[in-house]
Amino acid sequence: MKAINEELTFYDTASPTLRDGEVLVKVAAAGVNRGDLMQAAGKYPPPKGESEIMGLECAGVIADPGATDREQGQEVGCLLAGGGYAEYVAVPEGQLTPIPEGLTVEETAGVVEVACTVWSNLGMVAGIQEGDRVLIHGGSGGIGSFAIQMCKAMGCEVAVTAGSQEKLEYCRELGADVLINYKEQDFAEELPEWSDTILDVVGGPYLEQNIKALNTDGHLIVIAVQGGPKGTLSLGRMMPRRLSVHATTLRARPRPMKAAIVASTVEHVWPLIEAGKITPNISARFPLADAKKAHEHLDSGANTGKILLVVS
Amino acid sequence: MKAINEELTFYDTASPTLRDGEVLVKVAAAGVNRGDLMQAAGKYPPPKGESEIMGLECAGVIADPGATDREQGQEVGCLLAGGGYAEYVAVPEGQLTPIPEGLTVEETAGVVEVACTVWSNLGMVAGIQEGDRVLIHGGSGGIGSFAIQMCKAMGCEVAVTAGSQEKLEYCRELGADVLINYKEQDFAEELPEWSDTILDVVGGPYLEQNIKALNTDGHLIVIAVQGGPKGTLSLGRMMPRRLSVHATTLRARPRPMKAAIVASTVEHVWPLIEAGKITPNISARFPLADAKKAHEHLDSGANTGKILLVVS
Ligand SMILES: NC(=O)c1ccc[n+]([C@@H]2O[C@H](COP(=O)([O-])OP(=O)(O)OC[C@H]3O[C@@H](n4cnc5c(N)ncnc54)[C@H](OP(=O)(O)O)[C@@H]3O)[C@@H](O)[C@H]2O)c1
Ligand SMILES: NC(=O)c1ccc[n+]([C@@H]2O[C@H](COP(=O)([O-])OP(=O)(O)OC[C@H]3O[C@@H](n4cnc5c(N)ncnc54)[C@H](OP(=O)(O)O)[C@@H]3O)[C@@H](O)[C@H]2O)c1
Repeated sequence: MKAINEELTFYDTASPTLRDGEVLVKVAAAGVNRGDLMQAAGKYPPPKGESEIMGLECAGVIADPGATDREQGQEVGCLLAGGGYAEYVAVPEGQLTPIPEGLTVEETAGVVEVACTVWSNLGMVAGIQEGDRVLIHGGSGGIGSFAIQMCKAMGCEVAVTAGSQEKLEYCRELGADVLINYKEQDFAEELPEWSDTILDVVGGPYLEQNIKALNTDGHLIVIAVQGGPKGTLSLGRMMPRRLSVHATTLRARPRPMKAAIVASTVEHVWPLIEAGKITPNISARFPLADAKKAHEHLDSGANTGKILLVVS
Repeated sequence: MKAINEELTFYDTASPTLRDGEVLVKVAAAGVNRGDLMQAAGKYPPPKGESEIMGLECAGVIADPGATDREQGQEVGCLLAGGGYAEYVAVPEGQLTPIPEGLTVEETAGVVEVACTVWSNLGMVAGIQEGDRVLIHGGSGGIGSFAIQMCKAMGCEVAVTAGSQEKLEYCRELGADVLINYKEQDFAEELPEWSDTILDVVGGPYLEQNIKALNTDGHLIVIAVQGGPKGTLSLGRMMPRRLSVHATTLRARPRPMKAAIVASTVEHVWPLIEAGKITPNISARFPLADAKKAHEHLDSGANTGKILLVVS
């Protein structure tokens, strides 16, 4: 089969063989994520024992159900530790999702990873509820734009940061209530003790401001450290207000944990997609062979929305 | 009535009047806590609207049930935001505990605050389970010695730090499995990625080591910053192992939250006390009038065990 390796080369390789509990999926499309860029840059190796082929999410049809009760020909979305940039991929059954009603198979390829990331953190770690205030950093990014829609669909009040008025306008269209241009404003000064939950992709340099921006019993969840891995934490400020800081990645989780996340995401988030409250925004499509171009497009920073690799 | 104020003066003042949902308790004994020392030093003022009289816990008998269904003469333990160093104290009904079978009323006065602190953090925040590994800093202190016994009673493996061999020996007698003299050893080097949960009273200077000592999915809970309020947090280290940092105080919590903590503590911890698996260690008793001496004794650092003020 054809696939894309870490050098972003389109090459011939053997189709994957199935391990216990896996099904073989014929890939229709794969989503491109910032994690893929990091992997191609040599900074985000796949977990031990997982595919060396690129690709953290895809959708397609089951070509071989292996020893599972699945049926050949079933259309599925797939959360992957790797291997999505290929004609075929082996997927643990627990990491399969249905195609949400109203979405195409292709569109589903661009939704699985972001939905599981956002839900596992905001839903399962922070436990956001109707009426909560959520601050989302990088609101116009792939994670941010999904998180805005999901939080609004759940009845939360949403503030976002982004680096330009144009990007903030996009966030407003997605439902964001409070817009902060981080190049001109200090979000901690704009929103002191405002946030019940913060979803952060900046890390170290935002840590002190994030603590100031949290409301009593608030949760800060860090899923990327684009600004740097370390920061100063004021435990003294955190104690009387009972704050928590969590940091997570989805990819490194063991399979049973991923299966639990996929199940919970399908239970809680798929209905919001099916009700039209969260709509994927596919901004560009590239053929699988052009993965390098797709990466360059994401890397340029000009993109808002999801980039897909179309495979079959 | 007689009471002790923040200057540690024994003085005459009006008995408290009952507010909604409060009962009047005639105090038999009050526990002395490090928080009281901080309050007397002007560093830990009572939450707004709470008594200016010293004292975070006591036990006694109900002198006036107010508008509650309680009965006059019932013996109770009391979790307080203040007011325990006195002949009478007004207590929200939700903050009353029964006297554990096998304990005297006096002994109960030295158990309530520490039990609620330890359970609300290790049980309710970290959710410790049988088989978990728990690292307890300051193992020979009031909090630490209770936490060791509780964790062992729940089937956890327990490591402790303390500043002398003598204190470590005391921790071993209470059940601790791994003993670390923090003046001679680096706990993060001794126990890398060992702890499912860490209960910390040191704060800033221990933050980096605590993160290194946490196991995947681990929780660090900071309840005091005796070493300093700020530290460096490595979010980059936390992400792949999904670590959480929590910081809490019990005293600042609103009444309904305290009531929930008291109920959960009585449900989960009182049976362990009644089974003899956690025994209070009363090391010294002073008459209420001698509160200043009791504080000096705790402040000397020579004390291991609980100090009580005996009132009636
Ligand atoms: N932990 C996990 O499980 C997990 C899962 C998925 C993704 N991620 C990570 O999450 C991050 C976001 O993913 P994505 O797919 O949304 O990427 P994306 O679409 O490229 O978005 C990145 C966002 O980060 C913002 N940003 C970058 N540097 C910033 C800074 N210094 N200050 C403020 N904002 C900054 C950008 O905002 P502007 O464009 O407005 O500057 C942009 O909105 C990536 O780092 C990705 O690797 C983590
Ligand atoms: N957040 C809350 O809700 C809450 C509730 C109750 C208590 N607290 C706080 O928790 C702390 C412990 O309370 P306690 O009643 O157990 O007090 P304690 O009996 O006086 O014990 C203090 C302990 O801290 C240890 N310690 C102090 N400085 C240290 C350092 N730099 N490095 C390592 N260990 C150090 C001491 O160990 P060595 O003697 O071995 O040096 C001692 O075991 C106090 O600060 C108290 O205010 C907080």
